[in-house]
Formats: sequence, structure tokens, C-alpha cells
Amino acid sequence: MDYDAFFADHLDQLKSEGNYRVFAKLEREAATAPQAKMHRCNTRRPVTVWCSNDYLGMGKADFVRQAVADAALRDGAGAGGTRNISGTAVQHVALEAELADLHGKEAALLFTSGYVSNWASLSTLGARLPGCTILSDEMNHASMIEGIRHSRANKVIWKHNDSEDLNRKLASLPSGGARVVAFESVYSMDGDIAPIAEILDVAEAHGAMTYLDEVHAVGLYGSQGGGIAERDGVAHRVSLIEGTLGKAFGVMGGYIAGSAALCDFVRSFASGFIFTTALPPALAAGALASVRHLRRSDLERRRQQANVAKLRTRLDAMRLPHLDNPSHIVPVMVGDPFKAKFLSDALLENRRIYVQPINYPTVLKGTERLRITPSPLHTEEDIERLVAALSDLWSQCALNRAVA
Amino acid sequence: MDYDAFFADHLDQLKSEGNYRVFAKLEREAATAPQAKMHRCNTRRPVTVWCSNDYLGMGKADFVRQAVADAALRDGAGAGGTRNISGTAVQHVALEAELADLHGKEAALLFTSGYVSNWASLSTLGARLPGCTILSDEMNHASMIEGIRHSRANKVIWKHNDSEDLNRKLASLPSGGARVVAFESVYSMDGDIAPIAEILDVAEAHGAMTYLDEVHAVGLYGSQGGGIAERDGVAHRVSLIEGTLGKAFGVMGGYIAGSAALCDFVRSFASGFIFTTALPPALAAGALASVRHLRRSDLERRRQQANVAKLRTRLDAMRLPHLDNPSHIVPVMVGDPFKAKFLSDALLENRRIYVQPINYPTVLKGTERLRITPSPLHTEEDIERLVAALSDLWSQCALNRAVA
Repeated sequence: MDYDAFFADHLDQLKSEGNYRVFAKLEREAATAPQAKMHRCNTRRPVTVWCSNDYLGMGKADFVRQAVADAALRDGAGAGGTRNISGTAVQHVALEAELADLHGKEAALLFTSGYVSNWASLSTLGARLPGCTILSDEMNHASMIEGIRHSRANKVIWKHNDSEDLNRKLASLPSGGARVVAFESVYSMDGDIAPIAEILDVAEAHGAMTYLDEVHAVGLYGSQGGGIAERDGVAHRVSLIEGTLGKAFGVMGGYIAGSAALCDFVRSFASGFIFTTALPPALAAGALASVRHLRRSDLERRRQQANVAKLRTRLDAMRLPHLDNPSHIVPVMVGDPFKAKFLSDALLENRRIYVQPINYPTVLKGTERLRITPSPLHTEEDIERLVAALSDLWSQCALNRAVA
Repeated sequence: MDYDAFFADHLDQLKSEGNYRVFAKLEREAATAPQAKMHRCNTRRPVTVWCSNDYLGMGKADFVRQAVADAALRDGAGAGGTRNISGTAVQHVALEAELADLHGKEAALLFTSGYVSNWASLSTLGARLPGCTILSDEMNHASMIEGIRHSRANKVIWKHNDSEDLNRKLASLPSGGARVVAFESVYSMDGDIAPIAEILDVAEAHGAMTYLDEVHAVGLYGSQGGGIAERDGVAHRVSLIEGTLGKAFGVMGGYIAGSAALCDFVRSFASGFIFTTALPPALAAGALASVRHLRRSDLERRRQQANVAKLRTRLDAMRLPHLDNPSHIVPVMVGDPFKAKFLSDALLENRRIYVQPINYPTVLKGTERLRITPSPLHTEEDIERLVAALSDLWSQCALNRAVA
């Protein structure tokens, strides 16, 4: 068998479908964010980044960068081992305590990424809880889907954000056996928000554990940045809250928070936690500075929300179609992978605006989009330039406007 | 169902078996490595760390720490997105080019960890190659086992480091379909080394791809630190070399190197690559400094190898039983989880020496050990103190000495 020919064929197919990804190569400077320099064929051109998940600009905050740099200089570049074999640093322990406290839980456990925290936790719970059924929202993230798949637990999909469907699915299960209801708070690509309290009502009525992914919400919602569950006053009812340090907190890593026994169980049995080098203490130090800041400060959240509202108002004024949702994510809908790519390229070439097109498999085919994430660092002028550029392109490409 | 009670029961069982893990909490200072401070019940005591996988002390090297700190201060604390959505930085691209060059391959691809690189690459290859059988060495790391399991490809286990058994297993497969031979070069816990050339002979004779995990070898073997495949002059024959940036290179992250089509295929289809925030550019900058240094400098490798030899000679002189192997890993065999834990505790309490006991599931039950990893930073005095302490404890506990 010619392996390389097989790989090349499949890559050609992606290209013919418009789903082949070319990564934009960025040179960042924290001081100039959201401006960066894009490198392309030996050119470097300034661009305004409109698609970062460093939602609040915390990765660019001076005290976060300084915390990473100080700890790297003092303690070293890496952890040097798994958490069990010389890899646990005082910074990890302090960060876990802070995250537990943020979510009002007994304990928290760090992972190398949000992806790994979902994959490792769900695969461990699903595989080890007796007779386990995992009830998974149909729009759950790839990392949850892969974790559930890996666990080989019984899997039941319920309709997106539909607590009545969840109730029917739970009621139809044979009695006996563990149940885990797995869902997200803010869904990344549509920006819609789960009715957490309703889902908890249903789960509790059926004696199910609840697993809530808040990666697009931690730092962003709730008076301390504890996420939608904090905002809605229901965090104490959620069995496990999963979050990330790589989006609103601006660094890298993932975590779960829950009861001491639950976190200790995952710590003790999850392959993806046990057999991997710990996060560098310097990243834990940076994340700790970021989490602590966002528990005290509302300024970044308020500025971000104001920018989100401004952008939506301007898009509406120009009748540019975007998904209405109650979150900070602004999906401008295109519906075709080639057009999404064309728009992104044209924004870059002619307007020095960088918005990555979002294609399959990240979103369903036919729902390709430009996913725009306003941050507190964007200015009013940035917003005006973005909307004007989009409006010009919409006319140029004869794309449909929204109904007024 | 009482979930917390279930978790607590399973934790109690681990405790009763001696397999419950208590993480040692370390405060590191790069300047004093391999000395660190251990925090315990409000005390801080200096310890000599003898179980780090920062094998060459590169995580403590001034130019590596400085590279991380400089990039964190200039560019920011995190990547802010997946590689596809604003998360690719110039540092990632430069590091991938350097790693490809290190291994003499067309391309390389970064992952957030070595665990993820194995899991994501093997699960993608196994799931997508037509009629794929993965032939896996029986001692392969958990991350490879989980990746193969996740792929749901046909899996065939061959006897550890036994190319004849591999040959028999390959010959007995029905014709047609892809074959991937997956193995490691240096095995972490026993420190033995695979006969790579023999395995390649067999794989090539059967038209199989080869997947070689060099995480305990990169930076450490070969004239440029390209691993055992470089040392043995066979890197060009290996289809895919997997490595880590978190051990000898002293930082964090994993990677694969191989043909351009292979790396692009994994880049384009691996869920664990696509749907996760990229490594912070600052870590890529630190890793790049480390890799470049170890391609030019042999000093760290020579000092490490000299320390390994010294330690082995002194252990032999005291008839302390350790697994003989051709690598830098020195497993002092205990064979009981409680005794391994007791020895580790006693070394810590009375001698300020930190060696983590290695118990199940990291090693098979009955092969519990102290796994010692001498670095270039350990002094002759450190070695003398370690061996004297072990010898005293061996007498005190009436443990068996090695046959002279």
C-alpha cells in the first residue's frame, strides 16, 4: 500500500470541497493587540485580529505576561514530570485551590488542555461508573464526543438545549446504572446558552450526575467570572464544571471542579491525567494571576459586552446577517465554504482584517461562517472598519442581506 | 445512585492496595536545581530531586527560561486560539521546521503534549487508513494504547522488542489493508531500547508503516539529539517519529515528524489536533531554543551519561539491585508498593532525597521501583549521598541485595 498516496488523495478531496485549512501565521505583540503582523510569502503586514478566543485580552495583560515570565525565569521552563513524578509545583496546587473556590466546589484538577480535561474525565467516568449511560447534548464539543466514545459507555443523544427531550430520554432508560448528563453552557459556534436550571431539574429528578462544559463562559459570565452557572446561581447544583485556562483566562490548560471525591477519582484513574507531563508552573502562575484578577474586576467583561453590543447594532444597521444569541460570540453567516474563504481572504488582502472562515468539521456543512469575537481591546474605529468592509464585500459578492 | 460514595469506595480500595498517589508539592528554583523545596504540612524543606524527566536540565537553562520569558512578555501568555483560528504563531512554524530538520523529515506537527500526539495520531491513522491493523509492542505507553483503542482499528500485540514475533504476526495477517507497526525506542520504566533496524527490516518486508515513539530519547541520543533512530542511522526509514518537548527539551508539548503528506493528513483530520488551543508561542520559543542548543552541544549529554555510569557503578559496589539497561534510566527494584512508598518516604524524611515510588498502573504489580534519573546537574556528592542513603535503608529494611 502506498501510504503517502492515500494521504495525498484525501487531502486533495478536502481541497476540492473547500475544506482544506491554511493556517494564518501571526506575529503578535501584546502591546499592539488586537493588531498583529501576518506573515505570508515573505511579507509581513499589520492585521486586526477579530477571531481570537483570548476573549478578554487577558493573555496580553501586563500582569499575566509578567507572572508567566517571572515564574519561568525563577522556576524553569517546564514541569519536568507528570503530576505524580516530580511534576507538581506549588503553582499547580494554588491554582487548583483558586479554581475550586471560583466555582464553589471542594476541589479542582488541572489538565494540559480543555480538550484533555473533557476527553479524560468523560472517558474515565463513562468507563468506570457501573452500567453508565451518558446523555449528551447533540451539539457537544468534539472533545466530549471523543471522551464518551472512548469510554464505551451507553450513549444517548438529546436534542440541543431541550430539557424536555432530555427528560423523555432519561425516563426511557431501564432502571439501575449511573447516568451522566453532559452539556455545555455557551456553545462555541452558535453562541447560544443552555437553560442550565431546567436541565438540572430534569437531571436531579432522575438521579443523574451533571457534567457542564463552561469553556466559553469562565471568566466571562457571573460576578466573579465563574461562568453561566455562577450567573444563574446554580453552580452548587452542578456535579462537575469543566473549564479552560486558554480562552478568557488567556493562557493554556483545562480543569474540572467538583466534589473532593470526584476530582480525586479522576486524578487517580484518568489515563489522560496520569500519564502526561504537567503544565509548566509558569503557565499555572499566569493563569492564577488572570483568574484572581477576573474575580475582582468587572471592567474587562463590561467593555467586551459593550463592544459586542456595538458590533451587533452596526451589523443590524447594515443588514448583515448574523446569528442572534445572548453571548459574546457573533457568527456572521455565509453558508458556503468557498464564499466564507473568499470573504476571509478579501478582508485580509484589502482591509487588513483577519477573521478565519469556519468550515466543516468545526461546523455543519452549509452553515459556514465568519465567527467574530469582539474583545475589550477593539476600538470603536476597529468596529466601524470591520462593518464597512463586510458591507462592501456583501455588495460586491451579491450576498443576501438580512431582512430588515 | 450515590456517586460520591462510589468514588470514595474506589479510592479506599487504591489506598488499601498501596496504590493511592500523594503528589509531592515542589517549589523549584532553576538556579539551585536539582535542589528544590518540598512543601508539606506548612514546612518547606530542601530536597534533591532524583526523579525528574527534565533529563538534561534544559528547563533550568538560562537561555531556555529567557526565551520563554521574552516571548511571553513580548507576544502574550497564550496562543488565543486553535492552530486554525488565530492560534498559529511564527514560533510554532519555526519550531515545526526545526523539528522536521532534526529528524531529517519533510514536515513536523506540534501537539499540546506527547500524550496527545500519540493519542491523536494513532487514533486518526487507525480509524482512517483502509482496513488498518496496528501492530503494537506489548510495552507501549498508555497514550499509544489509548490512541489505538480509540481508533477501533484491528489491534495485534507483539512481544516486547521481539522482531521475530512481529514478523510472525505480520505474516499471519490476511492480505490487503494498511499496517502500522507502533513501538518506542527507549522504554520509560525499564530503560531498555528497541532493536529499531531489525523492526524496520520486518515492517518494510511486509509493507507496513512504522510509528516510533522517541519521547525518552529525543535530545538524549544521536549526534544532534535526534534520538535512537538518529544514533542508529535509520531515521530516514521510519515513517513517523513522535517526540516530546517536555522531557529532555525541558518545556512542554509533543510532535510528530514524517512526510509532508502524512503530517498534513494528521493536521487535517485529527480531532485532538484540530479542536484544541495551540501551545503558547512562548513555550514554542523556549522549546526552539532548547532544540537548537542540543543539536549543537554534546556537553549535557556527555555529563548526563557520565553521571548515569557513576551511579550504576556505585549501586553495583553496594550490591543495590537495579535493572541493567543501555539507557539513562536507572530503575532500583523494590517489588512491593508499600515498601517502595516506605523507602521513598524515608529518603525524604531522613535524607532530603526525593525519588517518587513507581507503582501500578505505571508499572506492573510486583515490579514497583524507585526510578532514578541522573542529570548533568547532579554532583558527585549528590550521587554519593543517594547511594549511601539507599544502602542504609536496604540494611534497615532487610531488603535483598543483588548477587555480587
